[in-house]
Amino acid sequence: MRFRNPVVSIRPFVHPTTPILVKKPALTATKNKKPRTQSTSKSTRKKDVAGAPVSDIPSSFSRIDIVRVTPSVDNGAYPIKRSVHEPVDVLAGVICDGHEHLGVELVWGPVGGEEHVTPLKLRYNDEYLGAFTPSTLEPYQYRVRAWIDRYTTWQDMFKRRVDGGSDKAELHTELQDGASLLRDAAAQASGRDRKRLEQAATAFEKGTVKRALDESLLALAQQYDPRQGAVESKPYPVYVDPELARFGAWYEFFPRSAPSSQRHATLDDAASLLPRIKELGFDIVYLPPIHPIGTAFRKGKDNSPTAQPGEPGSPWAIGNTDGGHKAVHQELGGMDAFERFVAKATTYGLKVALDIAFQTSPDHPYVKDHPEWFKHRSDGTIRYAENPPKKYQDVYPFDFEGEEWQSLWEELRSVFQFWMDKGITVFRVDNPHTKPLAFWEWCIGTLRQDHPELIFLAEAFTKPKTMYQLAKIGFNNSYTYFAWRNSKQELTEYATELFQTGAVDFYRPNFWPNTPDILTDYLTHGGRPAHVIRLVLATTLSSVYGIYGPPYEHVYNHQHPKREEYADNEKYEIRAWNWYDDHSLQPLMKRLNQIRKGNRALQFMHNLRFHTIDNPQLIAYSKTAEDHVILCVVNLDPYTHQFGWVDLPLAELGLPGDRGYEVYDMLGGERYSWHGSRNFVALNPHVLPAHVFRIERMAS
Amino acid sequence: MRFRNPVVSIRPFVHPTTPILVKKPALTATKNKKPRTQSTSKSTRKKDVAGAPVSDIPSSFSRIDIVRVTPSVDNGAYPIKRSVHEPVDVLAGVICDGHEHLGVELVWGPVGGEEHVTPLKLRYNDEYLGAFTPSTLEPYQYRVRAWIDRYTTWQDMFKRRVDGGSDKAELHTELQDGASLLRDAAAQASGRDRKRLEQAATAFEKGTVKRALDESLLALAQQYDPRQGAVESKPYPVYVDPELARFGAWYEFFPRSAPSSQRHATLDDAASLLPRIKELGFDIVYLPPIHPIGTAFRKGKDNSPTAQPGEPGSPWAIGNTDGGHKAVHQELGGMDAFERFVAKATTYGLKVALDIAFQTSPDHPYVKDHPEWFKHRSDGTIRYAENPPKKYQDVYPFDFEGEEWQSLWEELRSVFQFWMDKGITVFRVDNPHTKPLAFWEWCIGTLRQDHPELIFLAEAFTKPKTMYQLAKIGFNNSYTYFAWRNSKQELTEYATELFQTGAVDFYRPNFWPNTPDILTDYLTHGGRPAHVIRLVLATTLSSVYGIYGPPYEHVYNHQHPKREEYADNEKYEIRAWNWYDDHSLQPLMKRLNQIRKGNRALQFMHNLRFHTIDNPQLIAYSKTAEDHVILCVVNLDPYTHQFGWVDLPLAELGLPGDRGYEVYDMLGGERYSWHGSRNFVALNPHVLPAHVFRIERMAS
Repeated sequence: MRFRNPVVSIRPFVHPTTPILVKKPALTATKNKKPRTQSTSKSTRKKDVAGAPVSDIPSSFSRIDIVRVTPSVDNGAYPIKRSVHEPVDVLAGVICDGHEHLGVELVWGPVGGEEHVTPLKLRYNDEYLGAFTPSTLEPYQYRVRAWIDRYTTWQDMFKRRVDGGSDKAELHTELQDGASLLRDAAAQASGRDRKRLEQAATAFEKGTVKRALDESLLALAQQYDPRQGAVESKPYPVYVDPELARFGAWYEFFPRSAPSSQRHATLDDAASLLPRIKELGFDIVYLPPIHPIGTAFRKGKDNSPTAQPGEPGSPWAIGNTDGGHKAVHQELGGMDAFERFVAKATTYGLKVALDIAFQTSPDHPYVKDHPEWFKHRSDGTIRYAENPPKKYQDVYPFDFEGEEWQSLWEELRSVFQFWMDKGITVFRVDNPHTKPLAFWEWCIGTLRQDHPELIFLAEAFTKPKTMYQLAKIGFNNSYTYFAWRNSKQELTEYATELFQTGAVDFYRPNFWPNTPDILTDYLTHGGRPAHVIRLVLATTLSSVYGIYGPPYEHVYNHQHPKREEYADNEKYEIRAWNWYDDHSLQPLMKRLNQIRKGNRALQFMHNLRFHTIDNPQLIAYSKTAEDHVILCVVNLDPYTHQFGWVDLPLAELGLPGDRGYEVYDMLGGERYSWHGSRNFVALNPHVLPAHVFRIERMAS
Repeated sequence: MRFRNPVVSIRPFVHPTTPILVKKPALTATKNKKPRTQSTSKSTRKKDVAGAPVSDIPSSFSRIDIVRVTPSVDNGAYPIKRSVHEPVDVLAGVICDGHEHLGVELVWGPVGGEEHVTPLKLRYNDEYLGAFTPSTLEPYQYRVRAWIDRYTTWQDMFKRRVDGGSDKAELHTELQDGASLLRDAAAQASGRDRKRLEQAATAFEKGTVKRALDESLLALAQQYDPRQGAVESKPYPVYVDPELARFGAWYEFFPRSAPSSQRHATLDDAASLLPRIKELGFDIVYLPPIHPIGTAFRKGKDNSPTAQPGEPGSPWAIGNTDGGHKAVHQELGGMDAFERFVAKATTYGLKVALDIAFQTSPDHPYVKDHPEWFKHRSDGTIRYAENPPKKYQDVYPFDFEGEEWQSLWEELRSVFQFWMDKGITVFRVDNPHTKPLAFWEWCIGTLRQDHPELIFLAEAFTKPKTMYQLAKIGFNNSYTYFAWRNSKQELTEYATELFQTGAVDFYRPNFWPNTPDILTDYLTHGGRPAHVIRLVLATTLSSVYGIYGPPYEHVYNHQHPKREEYADNEKYEIRAWNWYDDHSLQPLMKRLNQIRKGNRALQFMHNLRFHTIDNPQLIAYSKTAEDHVILCVVNLDPYTHQFGWVDLPLAELGLPGDRGYEVYDMLGGERYSWHGSRNFVALNPHVLPAHVFRIERMAS
C-alpha cells in the first residue's frame, strides 16, 4: 500500500471492543479469572518478528491459534469479491493444545454496521466450516472467533466416565466442576435461561448424574459460554458488487456503424438497435470511446498513417477543439443524443458501458491547457506514444508521475464522475496496465466509497502478475487470455487456474471470443463452426462474457495480414452490418443468453468442474446449482465429426448411480436417457458442435 | 502472536533509513524530484484495508509493487529455516506499469548487523532471482528493493532509435535526456567513476551517439543510479540453525540397558557404547529421560498397572524424593556420571540429546512444593492424566494456564537452561502439542536469543496443522508420519508435500522408522527386508533421521498384541542387547551413514525429486548436488523379487543424453553402464532391496 490513508475500505472501521453477539452475552461482561487473550492476528505478529527482543514472561497468552482463514486474498491484504446475495463459504483452521472442544464462530456484517454471528462447524482436520451472505451493496468484512468450549469438553469427559463405570464419589466430584461451568454461563444469561442454568447447577451440586447428560442443557451452556480467553482473527474484507459484475453479457458495437440515412450514424440512430440488443439477451451495451476525434495525424482505413478526407478516424484518438473526455463527438449527435441513448437503454433495462482511454490526440484541449500533464522532450515538444522505431504521433500519453501528477489524477478521476453523473455505472478501462497501479487503487477506491454499484472492466492484456494485481486493487471485471486458449489442455489448465484456485476470489474473468483488436487464427480458419464453439465456451465457462457483436454474428473473419486482428477494421472505418439476420449467429446468441438466464448454475464462477472424456478434441465440464447440473460437451475441432464417452462423477454431481436419468440438450432441443457414469456423445461441427445439457439433481 | 513483545527476533531491528549499500550511494543523498516512495509492505496495507476512508489525493505513490517474495512462511509472519552456509534462493515478483526496465536487489544480513546487497536478475514473467548465504549462526533477514532503472530503459530505447534509422536531430534531442540521467548518477559517485560519468554526459550533450551504446557505461550508470522512488519489501526473517539441524543422524537407546555387571547399568556403563555409536556414524546420542523415576503407581513390565519389586519403572514417570527434572536418576550414577558421559561424548564429537517431558510422577518434588502448578479436582486432589475411562495415575500434567502459570513457565524454561549449563544443546521434547503453543514460542524464542545453536525436536504425533504450527513458532526438527507411509503412493505424496512445497522452509522432517512407542505392522510382518527398506528410505529421503537402535539392529519385531508398538517394551524393563554383531543391521547402518557423509546431495532436503518407474512396488528418487546425483531405487515389497524400468529426466539431472554413463551402487558395490533415460533394475529383498547409486554429473 502506497498511501498513508486507505482507499479500499469505505467506512471507518473500529474494532469493536464489545462485539455485537446475536443472542449471546457480551464478552466484556465476563469475569476473567484466566489471563485475557490477545488477538492472534498476523498483522501484529509480523511487526513483532522484526521488533525488539524479549526475555520477560508475557502478561497474557492464548492457547488457540487461528492458523488459516479462507476465502481470503493474500491473507486479507486485499478484499475478496462477491456480489449481493452471493454466499461466502468460510473455512477456518483453528488449533489448540490438548484435546478440548473448541467453539468457533463467524462474526460478519457491513463495515461499520451491525455485526452478525454464525457458528462454524468442525469438518475434519481442525477445519471449521460455515457461511454468510451479504445482503446489501456495500463493503463487508468477517472475522473468526474461537474459544475453548469448556462445558462441552466437561460433558464429553463426564459421559465417558459414566460409560466407563466410574464410582459415585468420582462422579460427584466431577459434577462440582460441571456446576461451576454452568454458574459461569448463568452469569451471562437472564430470565428463564438463567434460571434453567442455575437450577441445573444446583442439581449437579447435589450429585444428579442424569441432568449432566442432557443435550438441551448442553445447547444452553454453549449459548451462554462466557467465551473466556476467546481469540479473534483479523477482519477479512469483502468487496460486495452488483450482481452484474458476476453475471452479465456484454455487447460491443461501434455506434457510428448503426443503420442511418447518413454514412456516419448518430447515437440516436444507434439507439434504434437497443430493442434488438435487448432481445438478443444482452445486459450491457458497450460503446468504444464516443468523444471528439482528433484530426492531427489521423489514421485512415486499415491503420494507414494518413487519413483520406472524410475518413472518420479512430475513436481512441481522443479530443479535438470540440472537447475531450467529457464531450461527445459531434458526428455522433453530441451530448444530447448520448443522454437520449442512455435514457432509452435504461427503459430497456440495459446498462451502457463507456470505454475510458486515458490518452489524448494532439488536438485535445488538455494539450493546450495543461501541457504539464504530458511528457516533454528536451527540445520542449510533447512526447507522443512510441515503441521505437514505431511512432504513434496521433496519441499523447499522460505523465502520471510528472510535477503536476496530483492535479492530473484529480482531473482523470473527474472524468469517471462526469459520466457517473450522466447515469453511467459501467466502465471498460483501456490499457490500465500502462498507468500506475496506485492511480487505479486511489481512483476506483475513492469512487466506490459512495458508489459500490460501479463496475470497472480492466482491458489489460499483459503479464499475469499485473493482470491479477489490477484486480486485487479494485477492478471487478477483467479481460483474460481466453481468446488464445483453444485446445482441450489449454482450456482446462487456464479455466482451472481461474475458477478453481483462489484467483476467482479476486479476479472475475470476463470471456471475450473477439474484440476489435482480436480475431484469432482459430476463428479465422475455423469459420462458422469455430465461431459457434467459441461462443458456447465463453457463455458457459464464465458467468460474465462479452462479444464484439457485428462481425462475429456474420462470421466476418478476414484477418489482418500480419496480426491476429480484423482486416478492414471498424476502428478506422464505418461498416454496414445486417443487424437482423436469422441466418447469422444472432439466434444462437439469443438462445445462449436465454439458457444462461434460465439456469442458475451458469450464473456463477466457483462451480465449474471438468470431466473426463476419451477424445482429445472433446471437452466436458459442468456447473452445479441446488437442483440442477449444466453439463457442456464441446467439440473443439471445427472441421470433423467427433465421438466419445464422457465420464461423470455421479455422486459428486448428485445424479443417480443406480438408475437412469434424463439429459436435455437446451441447445439442440433433444432429450437423451443416460445410465451410469459413462455415456456416449457425438458432435458434428457442421450441425452443432456442442451439447448444453440440463440434468435435474436428486433431492438430497 | 500473543505477546506484546516478540520472541522470534533476537536483536532489536531498526528499519534503516539509510540502507547500507555496498558500493552504492545512499538513498538519502538523492535529490528527490519525484515523490518519495513509501514501502509496499503488506503489513501497512493490511491496517489500511480496515482503516479510515480517504478521498483526498495521496501525497506520494510508487509505480512499483513487490507482489510476492519467496522463500517465506505466511508472507514473513514466521521465519524460514536455513542452516549456516546453506544458500537461500530468493525469487521476487515485481511489477510496474508500462515497459521500463527495473532494478531489483536483495538487501540481506544478520538482524541488526551489516547489510549486504546482491542483485536479482529477471528470469521471466516478472520474477527476479538471486541468492545469499548466511555465514554466521544468528538470525538473518532479507528484503527486496526495486526501482525503475531509467538509464537502461533510456539506452534500450535509444538503441532501437539508432537501429530504426532515427534522424540526427531526434537522436540529439534524446541524448540530452541520457545526459541528464548520467549527471544524476554522477552526483552519487566520486573519484574516477564520477569523472567518467560526467565526461560521458558532456559527450552526450555534444551529440556523440557512439558513447551512448557503450555497455561499460551502462554498468556504471546502473551502479550509481540514484534509485529514485525505490520501494522495499518488508524484511523476511531467517532462522539460522547449526548444520546438525539440517543434516544429522540420531541414535536412541536406554542407557540402563547398556552392558554392565549390574542389571541396571549406569551412564558410565552407557558411556562405553559411545565409541561404537561414533563408529556406526551417528552424530547425536539421544537418551530417554534420565531423571529420578517415581514409585507411586509405578508401571511394571509391558505397562502392567502395578510394578513388581525391583522393576525399574518408566523413565517418563519423572521425579521422586531424589529430585525431578534437574536431577539424574541415582541408579544411572547421578549427576557426576552424567557429566562424565557428556564429556566422553564430546571427545568423540557426539552431541547428547536429552528427552524433556513436562509432566511429573506423584513423587516429584514440585507436587509438594508447588501444588499450584497442577490441576485440582473440586475435592482438592491433584488431577492425574486421564482419557476417560482410562486413568494414568502415575502421571501428573502441569496446569499451563493456572493462576501461577507465569512462575511455572519460568521454572520449565529453567529446566532447559539447567541442562544447557551442562553442555546440552539438543533437546527432544515430549508431546509438545499438549502444552500451549504460546509457551513454546516464548520458551524456545527466548532461549535462542543467546543460544542460536540449540536444536529442539518436536515429538508431536498429532494433526497436521498443529505439527506445522509447532515448527513455525520455533521447533527446528519435527517427528513426522513417515513410519506409517509405506506404499509408493503414500511415500511419494507425503515426501512431495514435505520437501517440494513451502513446508520444508519451516518444517524439518526428522524421519524415524521406529521409536520405543512405534513398531509398525510393516516392520513386524516384513522382518529383516522391511527393516532394511525402511532404514534406506529414512537415511536417503530426509537429511535428518533417527533410529531407536537396539531392537532395530536385531530386527526385534515382537509387536504388542493391541498396538503398533514393541512388546516387552524397554520403557518398562531392562533389556540385554548384543551391541557388537556383524550379522545384525549394524554394518548397514554404518554404511548408510558413511554414504550420507560422503555425498553432499544426501545432506539437503529441498533437492528431492521422484522419478517414474513402471512397477508399483518400486520407488525411484534422486537428490542432486553440484557434481553428482544420488539415485535411489527401493523395492518396497519385502517379500518378492521385483523388476522395472526407471525413467530419468537426463537434462534436468545433468546426465548425458547422447552417450552412456556409469552408475555406482554404493550399497551393493556394483557398477553399471547405463544409456539414455530408461534403464532396467531388479531388486531381491532377501539380498538387498535397494540401490543407492552415485552418478557423476556433466560439467555444465
